Amino acid sequence: MAQHNAFYAQSGGVTAVINASACGVIEACQRHPDRIGKVYAGHNGIIGALTEDLIDVSQESTETIAALRHTPGGAFGSCRYKLKDIESHRTQYERLIEVFKAHDIRYFFYNGGGDSADTCLKVSQLSEKMGYPLTAIHVPKTVDNDLPITDNSPGFGSVAKYIATSTLETSLDIASMCATSTKVFVLEVMGRHAGWIAAAGALAGQGEGEPPHLVIFPEVPFDRARAMARVEACVKQYGYCVVVVSEGARYEDGTFLADSGNTDAFGHRQLGGVAPTFAGMVKQDLGYKYHWAVADYLQRAARHLASQTDVEQAYAVGAKAVELALDGQNAMMPTIQRVSDAPYEWRIEAAPLAEVANREKFMPREFIREDGFGITEACRTYLAPLILGEEFPPFENGLPKVARIAGHKVARKLPEFTI
Amino acid sequence: MAQHNAFYAQSGGVTAVINASACGVIEACQRHPDRIGKVYAGHNGIIGALTEDLIDVSQESTETIAALRHTPGGAFGSCRYKLKDIESHRTQYERLIEVFKAHDIRYFFYNGGGDSADTCLKVSQLSEKMGYPLTAIHVPKTVDNDLPITDNSPGFGSVAKYIATSTLETSLDIASMCATSTKVFVLEVMGRHAGWIAAAGALAGQGEGEPPHLVIFPEVPFDRARAMARVEACVKQYGYCVVVVSEGARYEDGTFLADSGNTDAFGHRQLGGVAPTFAGMVKQDLGYKYHWAVADYLQRAARHLASQTDVEQAYAVGAKAVELALDGQNAMMPTIQRVSDAPYEWRIEAAPLAEVANREKFMPREFIREDGFGITEACRTYLAPLILGEEFPPFENGLPKVARIAGHKVARKLPEFTI
Repeated sequence: MAQHNAFYAQSGGVTAVINASACGVIEACQRHPDRIGKVYAGHNGIIGALTEDLIDVSQESTETIAALRHTPGGAFGSCRYKLKDIESHRTQYERLIEVFKAHDIRYFFYNGGGDSADTCLKVSQLSEKMGYPLTAIHVPKTVDNDLPITDNSPGFGSVAKYIATSTLETSLDIASMCATSTKVFVLEVMGRHAGWIAAAGALAGQGEGEPPHLVIFPEVPFDRARAMARVEACVKQYGYCVVVVSEGARYEDGTFLADSGNTDAFGHRQLGGVAPTFAGMVKQDLGYKYHWAVADYLQRAARHLASQTDVEQAYAVGAKAVELALDGQNAMMPTIQRVSDAPYEWRIEAAPLAEVANREKFMPREFIREDGFGITEACRTYLAPLILGEEFPPFENGLPKVARIAGHKVARKLPEFTI
Repeated sequence: MAQHNAFYAQSGGVTAVINASACGVIEACQRHPDRIGKVYAGHNGIIGALTEDLIDVSQESTETIAALRHTPGGAFGSCRYKLKDIESHRTQYERLIEVFKAHDIRYFFYNGGGDSADTCLKVSQLSEKMGYPLTAIHVPKTVDNDLPITDNSPGFGSVAKYIATSTLETSLDIASMCATSTKVFVLEVMGRHAGWIAAAGALAGQGEGEPPHLVIFPEVPFDRARAMARVEACVKQYGYCVVVVSEGARYEDGTFLADSGNTDAFGHRQLGGVAPTFAGMVKQDLGYKYHWAVADYLQRAARHLASQTDVEQAYAVGAKAVELALDGQNAMMPTIQRVSDAPYEWRIEAAPLAEVANREKFMPREFIREDGFGITEACRTYLAPLILGEEFPPFENGLPKVARIAGHKVARKLPEFTI
């Protein structure tokens, strides 16, 4: 069969394992030299395609490509750039097709979350309308775990492992000093819309009284009095209280805790931070000594503590994307199908993008304990396998060894395009 | 020779490896059953000795003791409790001796930082005056790396490795998205008095332009205009800017950045956080999109990423403490002596507590780059070996396996004592 080129791009917030998916895509492409010629990566995601800013992946060494598997961040650059609707911004989509045509790109692999699934679908539809034979496959990725159909999203398992481990470790720290020092520790985690990551913190403890003692979910309207009463009860019963709070925690009326009207010395609105806000309530209402941490990007970049399950799945969806494309299955997304909980078994399936785009998966209510401060056994059963296994990166001089892309640019063939 | 009991206690802020020292002390004691009978651990540090709240370590399994080597926090409980001066609070010191006498404790191992070295010395002096034959050894521990004589303090190397790794990982994250998203990332690290931990963040990068681009030390008076100018220059030149800021960062007049007068909606002084404060300046002065993280206890509890060098040294000072005691060397502290930088070699020596107590080791000025925003080669040479090697804990169900002390209490023999 004829040989054509492939395009790969990363989209949206990066994860500890998005490069493992890149590795999966690239290595799978390289296993089919009869069908796939060069792999071009979009520099800074889809912007690279629009501006014809392409990296020639074939000029990277085999070692560099293999090392992507254990390198966090987005090696080719990612972007927060959502293509606008196709009706009013048709030129953007047409430009993509032009660039693909100019570089004989017939395979389009787009690695991202919900928005990029939608973009991928639209590009596929337009290419069809324009009579350009493009096979578009979306490679799932998001720490938020909010993609539908797939049992979980690559990227989430590693954040979950990091947060569960950090909660366990810091809980031991607090527990050992609570008699004379910090009584309440608050860890802020990501998840603006859904409490998946916060829920993962609960994996650190199991039995009655084991920390974390409170998990604050975006899904449960925040009630200060109830939360503080629970903190107080924990300190009285266990000597200390560990709280995992989602950045998306909000009041009944939808106001985020982090936006609760704090101002700085200049009268400017105080900059986010649910953890310090919660800690401030503890101080005001209960007077306990507190400490707080905001994990922020540390949690989604922590490849050193990636879940082996997550790494393998991230790689597998990348490799599967290429198989699907070579099989002529257009506008699809590889999905993870859970076969069994314990022992955990999974396989890769696929779903049409039309069923994926513009649908978010939220935490089921039955995953949150009735009192709203913890997870149920059903949730534990779901989450537990996702953090299984370690795949530590190689270290050099005490630090993780990472892939550094040479980034040879492909010569431009088209006029400039302003986005 | 006669057999007597030993007492071990943890003091002050715990670290990822203080239990490795406990393991070193206990296993070394157990190798000398002819000389050392039982090891009693103070529950919650020295408070356990004062209140006769002792844990019988001989009732813990060999596996539990071995597992201390990879368990963060303070397994027997630590405390923030400084014994007052001996003149006005002689009863406290006398009580310690009484408890030791009642339980035939002739070996006193105190595992902590500068304050506990001082306490250890005083206890030793008083026992001599009172004619009670006690051998008191201080086991060094502090993430702050501020103990004198010893080349470095056990506990520091692991925080250093965690901060350097986190800086490297998050830098890759920011770099990959800076074209359309976050331009400035601020990571707040511990170190109220000295910039050792902040300096460790600089190990993440080496060449010109490699992140972190700015390190903010407590030792260098903070100049907002200069710092913001540098942030702006980095964003213009590299596309982004990564900042590691010490919690102890302060202005010329000594005011901490974290205390710069922010108030919340209730007019209360806003709760710390140098990172959000710095990020706020970036927003106000430069308008860049920012993110910030506060590592807080995560950094000192992160046993999962401990430095192998640090674990080995923590164990070694514990074991050496017992050797010193059995050798009759009273009022001493095992120290780490650097033999060579590369390859890194070290050995354990010992120093008299009289030379250790009440002396803090600060960062030498020649370790800070002339512009005040980075480290020198001399600093790098000093720091680099301390993060070498990995000693990952065993994992179970995706989480680090930790020691859980059974904590059998020793029967009390004395009247109650109120502290």
